[in-house]
Amino acid sequence: MDLFKQLETAASGTRVGLDEVLSALRFNSDGLIPAIAQQHGNGEVLMLAWVNREALLETLRTGRACYYSRSRQKLWRKGEESGHMQLVRAVYADCDGDTLLFSVEQTGPACHTNRPSCFYLRFADQNQDTGLTVIQEPVTT
Amino acid sequence: MDLFKQLETAASGTRVGLDEVLSALRFNSDGLIPAIAQQHGNGEVLMLAWVNREALLETLRTGRACYYSRSRQKLWRKGEESGHMQLVRAVYADCDGDTLLFSVEQTGPACHTNRPSCFYLRFADQNQDTGLTVIQEPVTT
Repeated sequence: MDLFKQLETAASGTRVGLDEVLSALRFNSDGLIPAIAQQHGNGEVLMLAWVNREALLETLRTGRACYYSRSRQKLWRKGEESGHMQLVRAVYADCDGDTLLFSVEQTGPACHTNRPSCFYLRFADQNQDTGLTVIQEPVTT
Repeated sequence: MDLFKQLETAASGTRVGLDEVLSALRFNSDGLIPAIAQQHGNGEVLMLAWVNREALLETLRTGRACYYSRSRQKLWRKGEESGHMQLVRAVYADCDGDTLLFSVEQTGPACHTNRPSCFYLRFADQNQDTGLTVIQEPVTT
């Protein structure tokens, strides 16, 4: 039986070794799995990026968020160029093992536009024209 | 120039019509885009699911979260079987238009295991065996 199916009914405190977890995680056909980065403390969702097996292992080992850049096709140590790194307080997997959640302490803005979060575009309320509105000023540095 | 690239430097309050947004959103090769569901109020990340164009439009129109089930290959109106629906308070897009964020009021547990959130599996801290631990009891109904 699939590991994640087994864990559905497992008691709190049940532990599974890393090798078994890595075998069961549902990396997609490109070897990637989405990782949501959430600000520790206030709960703000900062961004979504992707990790491969290597990036996940580096994140777990170093406590600094490491993703896989699909555009550059290589490991992306968040903040390696911008300085805006993420100290990882906890890593979670979801019920079917196809999404990760990083609880992080973000240094500086998370977004490459220098906004605190990447989610700065908001769809209008229902019954209005449901286009997108920019809800946060770009930060000029 | 790509719409989302243009919006990087746009002032707060800038609006873009829905048709233009739908053309620019980066649906993947299966026509899907990931949507993070976050509890309005306490900020808890509840789940990640996928939407196609139709599911997004239905969500915007009705104010109830509608996803696309990859396993069942059809629209998935969250709660249609369980009753655990999501009232959508706001929908956000991220800086490069390839991820959505739904701010929701979740009725009952979000997870199909009857846990409040799907992220109930936590990797151990660094310097320990970094396997997964179940951190929340399954809720029996």
